[in-house]
Amino acid sequence: MKHLRSISEIGPEAVTRILDLTDHMVEVNQRANPKVPALRGRTVCNLFFEDSTRTRLSFETAAKRLSADVMTFTVKESSVNKGESLRDTIETVAAMGVDAFVIRHKSSGVPWQVSRWTTASIINGGDGWHAHPTQALLDAYTVRNALGRTGGLDGLRVAIVGDIRHSRVARSNIEVFRALGADVTLVAPATLLPPTPLAPCTDDLDSVIGEIDVLYLLRMQMERIHDAVIPSIREYSTRFALTAERAARLGKHVLVMHPGPMNRGVEIMVDPAEIPGAMITKQVANGVAVRMAVLFDLLASTESLDMEVPA
Amino acid sequence: MKHLRSISEIGPEAVTRILDLTDHMVEVNQRANPKVPALRGRTVCNLFFEDSTRTRLSFETAAKRLSADVMTFTVKESSVNKGESLRDTIETVAAMGVDAFVIRHKSSGVPWQVSRWTTASIINGGDGWHAHPTQALLDAYTVRNALGRTGGLDGLRVAIVGDIRHSRVARSNIEVFRALGADVTLVAPATLLPPTPLAPCTDDLDSVIGEIDVLYLLRMQMERIHDAVIPSIREYSTRFALTAERAARLGKHVLVMHPGPMNRGVEIMVDPAEIPGAMITKQVANGVAVRMAVLFDLLASTESLDMEVPA
Amino acid sequence: MKHLRSISEIGPEAVTRILDLTDHMVEVNQRANPKVPALRGRTVCNLFFEDSTRTRLSFETAAKRLSADVMTFTVKESSVNKGESLRDTIETVAAMGVDAFVIRHKSSGVPWQVSRWTTASIINGGDGWHAHPTQALLDAYTVRNALGRTGGLDGLRVAIVGDIRHSRVARSNIEVFRALGADVTLVAPATLLPPTPLAPCTDDLDSVIGEIDVLYLLRMQMERIHDAVIPSIREYSTRFALTAERAARLGKHVLVMHPGPMNRGVEIMVDPAEIPGAMITKQVANGVAVRMAVLFDLLASTESLDMEVPA
Repeated sequence: MKHLRSISEIGPEAVTRILDLTDHMVEVNQRANPKVPALRGRTVCNLFFEDSTRTRLSFETAAKRLSADVMTFTVKESSVNKGESLRDTIETVAAMGVDAFVIRHKSSGVPWQVSRWTTASIINGGDGWHAHPTQALLDAYTVRNALGRTGGLDGLRVAIVGDIRHSRVARSNIEVFRALGADVTLVAPATLLPPTPLAPCTDDLDSVIGEIDVLYLLRMQMERIHDAVIPSIREYSTRFALTAERAARLGKHVLVMHPGPMNRGVEIMVDPAEIPGAMITKQVANGVAVRMAVLFDLLASTESLDMEVPA
Repeated sequence: MKHLRSISEIGPEAVTRILDLTDHMVEVNQRANPKVPALRGRTVCNLFFEDSTRTRLSFETAAKRLSADVMTFTVKESSVNKGESLRDTIETVAAMGVDAFVIRHKSSGVPWQVSRWTTASIINGGDGWHAHPTQALLDAYTVRNALGRTGGLDGLRVAIVGDIRHSRVARSNIEVFRALGADVTLVAPATLLPPTPLAPCTDDLDSVIGEIDVLYLLRMQMERIHDAVIPSIREYSTRFALTAERAARLGKHVLVMHPGPMNRGVEIMVDPAEIPGAMITKQVANGVAVRMAVLFDLLASTESLDMEVPA
Repeated sequence: MKHLRSISEIGPEAVTRILDLTDHMVEVNQRANPKVPALRGRTVCNLFFEDSTRTRLSFETAAKRLSADVMTFTVKESSVNKGESLRDTIETVAAMGVDAFVIRHKSSGVPWQVSRWTTASIINGGDGWHAHPTQALLDAYTVRNALGRTGGLDGLRVAIVGDIRHSRVARSNIEVFRALGADVTLVAPATLLPPTPLAPCTDDLDSVIGEIDVLYLLRMQMERIHDAVIPSIREYSTRFALTAERAARLGKHVLVMHPGPMNRGVEIMVDPAEIPGAMITKQVANGVAVRMAVLFDLLASTESLDMEVPA
């Protein structure tokens, strides 16, 4: 595997390989000293054209645990503002000796464009409404791990609720859950569904809530109200939020997930700390392990397969 | 010791233990290679909701000298701005594997609140007007070290001058100097004293200047003029600044201290480089050593007590 | 060598020594693990009063390759904004234990001023219109390396084109190329030349383009148009840009250089990827190696001359 730009591009086999490798990284993270020298001498550059402290810290932590060096480049401080082209920026930073770029950009497709300009590996950290493959992998890992499964997720019923249309998280999660054999249902008002259906859809959360294994809540972008795509937060919450009533109807086995940061009082009206199946903090912890697995898969040479801490 | 949130909470014994450990860290810092592996594999997160390059760099340097990893999270770049709750932020970052948070926040009490949401150690890097315990420890260490003492500071006479009311530095210094047996006098106009007296007070700097061992100048916040708490900078300086005349009246043994950054021409009208007892640069240098001692005390396991550099 | 503040100050012998050392660093950078422990325990502080992500990342990467610790201090986040003097900032940061400061500042001469306030080494990362010695060294190294030479550059013909007047890059490059024995011609409109001539000048690029070995294009600062120093970008480009016609007239052996970031369509109208002698990406890569050589020359003790990776 040279790049991780989308789930569909790497296919089910690579997904399974990374999830298996993540088991190993979770074990590393539980050690008293969770650092291994696997990527010593490698440089990972976080190139963020959109702000995301969480995702950036997660990748930084993952890279440091594997002893890689990290360069952080956020667009506000960069000469990209002075009119430098994206290509020149990439070629310049790459020339300093970068082994992998983690790229977040508001335009779909940028990670593919960038990989034409550098020999470094590209990890898509989120491109427009298009894809966010490490989020999908950490979500899939979280489900697999919570269920104690080791292979795929055959027969699992997943509902993804919210603004599917503008969500790269939704797109990548549909791909990853299907690659693992799960059934995905999308729950959203018609205005928040993409023009081309990606999976079976409904706008009636209550009709599906008793028949699912995973309830995946998306973050509502407040800007959508101004876009007149949803009439009001209040109406959205009434129809699509996880309310106390809906939480009571959830089966005890149902996993509740959210990519964060949560809008409490919008898509979630209950405290997740009181839901037995809430996976939200677990998702963050697994995020570091999944990103370690991805970086390792892309950058480690065969002789660095050894995860032992040096004496 | 699990947290360092205030001096009063840890008590005199822990203060003395940290000051003693600081002697050891000062020795480490004088080595050709001032790095030790004591906290290898530990992660310290600087979570700054108020800007402070100095304090952040001091903690970062301290953590790196002990081989800990450092995450830096400043609020301007964070999703806290997107309406995420403080609790969600803490739980998210903690889930990535943080061993200690250094928190600076404009509201008093935040470090206590935060410690309910995470199992990580909390170090108060300054909360509102309330406390700044590492500043107090570095100040106490600087005095003890300058005087060549090894135990407490019995009988030492300390004057703290300036905006006591709005100063977390003053509050924590009153606590630490008293814990070590020193006498503290507060010097300020009535409008800059807290409603409840914390120590003997005066508004006459000249009456105390001949009878002290330590002159501790606070930074004047320029905003206070607009608050109409002081009539003018000029009048403040006339009555409370260290002027050339007052400097001449200081005993040669008197230590002059300031937490930085100094407002030259406001609280200090002379060049500290020309005052024999000026400790201002020494305070900064000791700040790194004290923070190393605090991090070590909170995070090191018994087997990492060895400070030797690996071969 | 204690400081690197300008090329003229260090002289031709030190220039040659650093270029020779750079050969060694280029070799280190080609290793599977390009990290050496030469500066373990040393701290380099990037103190940038002007934004420059590229230069900062290049110094950071260089320092990390040599296992030094890096502190980054940019003025926007610093208390310098609160009215702290430059001297107090330097003394404060230095007191935390800094071995070298890399300083970029909009005022000429700041690196000399700063070196009076600290015992740390000072590296000029660009001061006003005055000097940018590491840029000059990386440019000289790039030429020497591309030509396969090991000593000086006797007889080499270099043309520097563009806004010489406001360019620290031009000033330092004139010095370094002359120190190595090359001939330098400046090409610019009269309004963009300094009052005192620094080298032979012309405003006719076409008359020199057939008789040079190196074409060095400067970045045009767009602000100059508003200053009425150049009539329009279009006119500037017609007379001074590397156009397709001029590129066709360049000898195959001619090296084309630019300090970056390029203004495509202003000083360069062709894609450098299509010019055989384009060195622009090579300059960036060599920038890391040259900065490693400078940091090593300033900070390594004799026993760290060993560049081997530890077992």
